[in-house]
Amino acid sequence: MNFCSHCGNPVSQRIPQDDNRLRFVCDNCNTIHYENPRIVVGCLPEWEGQVLLCRRAIEPRLGYWTLPAGFMENGETTAEGALRETWEEALARVREERLYRLFNLPQINQVYMFFIGTLEDKKFGVGLESSEVRLFAESEIPWKELAFPVMAQTLREYFEDSKKGEFTVRISDITWPSKRKPASR
Amino acid sequence: MNFCSHCGNPVSQRIPQDDNRLRFVCDNCNTIHYENPRIVVGCLPEWEGQVLLCRRAIEPRLGYWTLPAGFMENGETTAEGALRETWEEALARVREERLYRLFNLPQINQVYMFFIGTLEDKKFGVGLESSEVRLFAESEIPWKELAFPVMAQTLREYFEDSKKGEFTVRISDITWPSKRKPASR
Repeated sequence: MNFCSHCGNPVSQRIPQDDNRLRFVCDNCNTIHYENPRIVVGCLPEWEGQVLLCRRAIEPRLGYWTLPAGFMENGETTAEGALRETWEEALARVREERLYRLFNLPQINQVYMFFIGTLEDKKFGVGLESSEVRLFAESEIPWKELAFPVMAQTLREYFEDSKKGEFTVRISDITWPSKRKPASR
Repeated sequence: MNFCSHCGNPVSQRIPQDDNRLRFVCDNCNTIHYENPRIVVGCLPEWEGQVLLCRRAIEPRLGYWTLPAGFMENGETTAEGALRETWEEALARVREERLYRLFNLPQINQVYMFFIGTLEDKKFGVGLESSEVRLFAESEIPWKELAFPVMAQTLREYFEDSKKGEFTVRISDITWPSKRKPASR
């Protein structure tokens, strides 16, 4: 951040009064520009023991398989965001969506929230950001071609929980050595 | 948003290629400035059947009682944010924190995440944004002087769940008639 989005003058980093963190503050109008983590919402669409995955047609991790997911937008709820991403990437509608998995990725200022949803019917297709969309049974999951570690972990736990018939909401943190950032969204 | 925070030139609202939403885009350097929901993290600190609340020393809702909560910061996890807010507002340390409650407030682009935590000891104090901090038994909760509806709902459910001894993670949406925005953080 170099300039104030409000008045266009240069910003500098300083700790505002009654605060304890460096913020970008406008040297002219004193607007404080807070920066906060972003939420990635996603869905695990299930259909008779199978799971719907999308092959990514965009970077990062082009060509790798992913659960439909993307940045939550203003004006929507977390579940609405997850359903929207499922529609945009897999042209699929799900119902009975329920929160399943939360991941913190503090090094890239992201919080992932995955829902499980049941496909309304067996209709799906290839959305704008996908090159292929298909259902996978557990034995068919392309574990080595999954786009992000959070996808592998969510799928692994989903199949385990399916056997128990119990889906508890879990939350965990993903960190990595500070010099090496994975290609996470 | 009037100016590009990257190059300082004017921005205008348009739908970028391969997108379907109006975004602020720089007319000069074409940077797209995404705006996304923010996360408010909070904690319900418990101690032998009582709950720690803070009386707000700042607007909005100055003088009303709240659970310690505030905007999640970059570089921290959701739980770390909840513990930080508990320290900043109530000078209290909690342990065994576990996710309890999620609220979507799509009209103000916020997602609330409340944790339950047990006080490490009976030590607490008045943080910078509070004017009073104290423990309340269920019968003492100042229901009519709570700062935000999400606080009342979380506390009500907490005492109900305490009787059952079972705390399920719940998620719900809070909306209101579009002309009337409550004084929510």
